[in-house]
Amino acid sequence: MKLIPVIMAGGVGSRLWPVSRETHPKPFMPLPDGENLIRKTFKRAASLGDVTEVLTVTNRDLFFKTEDEYRLVGRKELAQSFILEPFGRNTAAAVAAAALQVEQAHGAEALMLVLAADHLIQNEAAFTAAVEKAKILAAQGWLVTFGIQSQYPETGYGYIDANPDKPLEGGLKVNRFVEKPDLETAKQYVEAGNYFWNSGMFCFEVGSLLSELRRYAPEVMAEVHATLDQSRVAESGQNRYVTLEADAFGRVPDISIDYALMERSEKVAVIPCDIGWSDIGSWNAMSELTQSNNDGNRFEGEVLAHKATNNYVNSPERLAALVGVQDLLVIDTPDAVLIAHKDHAQDVKHIVSQLKSSGHEAHLLHRTVHRPWGSYTTLEEGERFKIKRIVVKPGASLSLQMHHHRSEHWIVVTGMARVFNDDREFMLNTNESTFISAGHKHRLENPGVIDLVMIEVQSGDYLGEDDIVRFQDIYGRADG
Amino acid sequence: MKLIPVIMAGGVGSRLWPVSRETHPKPFMPLPDGENLIRKTFKRAASLGDVTEVLTVTNRDLFFKTEDEYRLVGRKELAQSFILEPFGRNTAAAVAAAALQVEQAHGAEALMLVLAADHLIQNEAAFTAAVEKAKILAAQGWLVTFGIQSQYPETGYGYIDANPDKPLEGGLKVNRFVEKPDLETAKQYVEAGNYFWNSGMFCFEVGSLLSELRRYAPEVMAEVHATLDQSRVAESGQNRYVTLEADAFGRVPDISIDYALMERSEKVAVIPCDIGWSDIGSWNAMSELTQSNNDGNRFEGEVLAHKATNNYVNSPERLAALVGVQDLLVIDTPDAVLIAHKDHAQDVKHIVSQLKSSGHEAHLLHRTVHRPWGSYTTLEEGERFKIKRIVVKPGASLSLQMHHHRSEHWIVVTGMARVFNDDREFMLNTNESTFISAGHKHRLENPGVIDLVMIEVQSGDYLGEDDIVRFQDIYGRADG
Repeated sequence: MKLIPVIMAGGVGSRLWPVSRETHPKPFMPLPDGENLIRKTFKRAASLGDVTEVLTVTNRDLFFKTEDEYRLVGRKELAQSFILEPFGRNTAAAVAAAALQVEQAHGAEALMLVLAADHLIQNEAAFTAAVEKAKILAAQGWLVTFGIQSQYPETGYGYIDANPDKPLEGGLKVNRFVEKPDLETAKQYVEAGNYFWNSGMFCFEVGSLLSELRRYAPEVMAEVHATLDQSRVAESGQNRYVTLEADAFGRVPDISIDYALMERSEKVAVIPCDIGWSDIGSWNAMSELTQSNNDGNRFEGEVLAHKATNNYVNSPERLAALVGVQDLLVIDTPDAVLIAHKDHAQDVKHIVSQLKSSGHEAHLLHRTVHRPWGSYTTLEEGERFKIKRIVVKPGASLSLQMHHHRSEHWIVVTGMARVFNDDREFMLNTNESTFISAGHKHRLENPGVIDLVMIEVQSGDYLGEDDIVRFQDIYGRADG
Repeated sequence: MKLIPVIMAGGVGSRLWPVSRETHPKPFMPLPDGENLIRKTFKRAASLGDVTEVLTVTNRDLFFKTEDEYRLVGRKELAQSFILEPFGRNTAAAVAAAALQVEQAHGAEALMLVLAADHLIQNEAAFTAAVEKAKILAAQGWLVTFGIQSQYPETGYGYIDANPDKPLEGGLKVNRFVEKPDLETAKQYVEAGNYFWNSGMFCFEVGSLLSELRRYAPEVMAEVHATLDQSRVAESGQNRYVTLEADAFGRVPDISIDYALMERSEKVAVIPCDIGWSDIGSWNAMSELTQSNNDGNRFEGEVLAHKATNNYVNSPERLAALVGVQDLLVIDTPDAVLIAHKDHAQDVKHIVSQLKSSGHEAHLLHRTVHRPWGSYTTLEEGERFKIKRIVVKPGASLSLQMHHHRSEHWIVVTGMARVFNDDREFMLNTNESTFISAGHKHRLENPGVIDLVMIEVQSGDYLGEDDIVRFQDIYGRADG
């Protein structure tokens, strides 16, 4: 029985700003153990039995970052395919596209396991056991959900109302899905015992899923078919890359898989499970991953405290000091700091809205920006200068380019660079430097086998990112 | 009648950390109006009538910074003399040393006006009027204090109990000084009407002051005399520079002028005044200088708020966001952020103590360090690199030096540099760069008439500040 894990990396995680941002969203946030959620999710998926391919549905701007994370897990023998979205279009579109791809590659009897890229599961053994149960029901044609045993009356999750009277093999039939309840209702659910948190993970036999989708969400299916017909499909070895065509994808109804299908179908089952699940939905949830000290404070980074209790501070790069404060969340990043009361952790998303509506980049970008060839971090900007730390991956190169208004000075800190400056080509070794005058065509390559780390100092009257003329670009970004 | 303002720049202002630090203390903190307290104090002193010299008592490490501030006020015709302390030794020592210097330069009939470098006075006209009154009483031999009309029962200040029955010319005789009272006592003081806040400013005729000091504080006088006998005195034009000898100065009793003299003498008067005085003793006082918005928030810098009221945020360089918080002080600097409750503003000093006792540099240094030749700011440190922004004043030069383990790469952002690299000497213009290999002797000069601004990128295996061999230094710091 083939099992294809489908990792869905959709959400931005705006309640986890300022660490989570559009170009570096929640799945990529560093966790206290040094890993992140996307890597953990891939590892978890790859470790399941009968898995030969992992399919990821994500935004196309996150493709290279995601591949980098998977590479760190090191499971080259697995096929790692991608469906790349131009923008998020809710979960029904993503699940339908994934199902059609899996059917094409593996046939209608293949099973797919839909996983969120940004959930934490702390009990891997229990998870694996739950998946084994789900596979049995899915093979029988059930649309299988995973229901988390509710420990307390959480009002932030939807619930699954299951029928305990006629148990299925390893699971229960689902009566109905219910929206996030108020506290009173949530308490009744916990007491009743047959209500489970809806984890948003699913297991389907592809054929059954597609036939149910055609029945309950024919419009979604039609537009996803149309999108796939117009989309670019590239294959490289065992991997497939589907880049969804934007115009057609924009016509797919914007609806969740829960609304479109799960709440309508009669063939829905739930596997009750206790797998240490959390959707890390806010800084409160994130804080739980850090040990608290005697004052109830949880600190990541260098923090001093005086008469301060029950605070969470995440400040990996700078010193933070707390005096006489309680129940705060303090999140420090190189370009923004958040101070929120724990009772208002959900409201952090309003700051992101304010940033968006004012056109501020701090909802979008971190100081470190990832590119196909590596990354750059803006270290400092001032009058007439801008300083970047540039990391170029082994074998990678930047586009051949030219700037009208700025000179660039390059200092190699680690590794070796090959530099093209007009008609000269030369190597720059560690601790050496060169400079490119305004108006000169230039290109930078890492010919070595370790990362090239460079400091670039730009100087000049105008230092905007738009002062760039690209002549050649192996990533297809040439514009002149 | 000669009046010599004596500006006393002693305290560190640890309750205003992280902006105020030992090497950049409270008098130098930027205020919302773009000025700082030391510059305001000098300007105020220089604007008084009959002033031909301003004498400043300060730590020797703050000498160049202080001169730089005075230069910005631009009163070259005034003598600007300094007494430079190796360390703080309380106010009796400083006042006594200043009095002996003023006596020597201007005679025993000269008047001296003791001003704190870190107080704010918002009503300059009332201040000038109060000084005029003080001069009259001082000339009659009174030791004159300035008593602030208490607006409310402040428990953070000492009070002056004045005798309203036999008024002096423009002032009152002082009955006694009282320590910081509790709230009940403070309320009684405010009701009584003859209690004033002790502002810590004084006006003395130098002869009267010295004779009272010899009577009530003979030990202080003896040790200060001994210190001056062993101290270096340099003269340049109309300015005198007295560098106090450390060993002798360390033997002066560590006692305040209030304890040593004012509370004992029978000849103490007070000028009641309403001059818009504040000692800016905490972040609460500092926050008052910023206009509040409709939510009672006071913001310096870019701040977003959601359900946040009555907070003060000082974040000139980074975005700050508040969610669901009240009555907080948030102070952001490039290397440290403070979050304190307003009710605990006084406790900020405990953080500074913690930093000190743990050997952390953040109580001492900012990222910008001032030097006789200009300043440098550490922009970034990482593995194998350190980046500084260096500002060299016109005509100034750094010492001839050499590093064993690091190469330095210099990029001129503004101005012109003269570079000596082993036996080569050359000019480096704006947007040009050069590099100095490890082991090469080098020196940097600004031959121009505007500031030279450079980015220095250090690369190498070891980047500690102690990897420096100095060969020549016009500021006397050569060590090899």
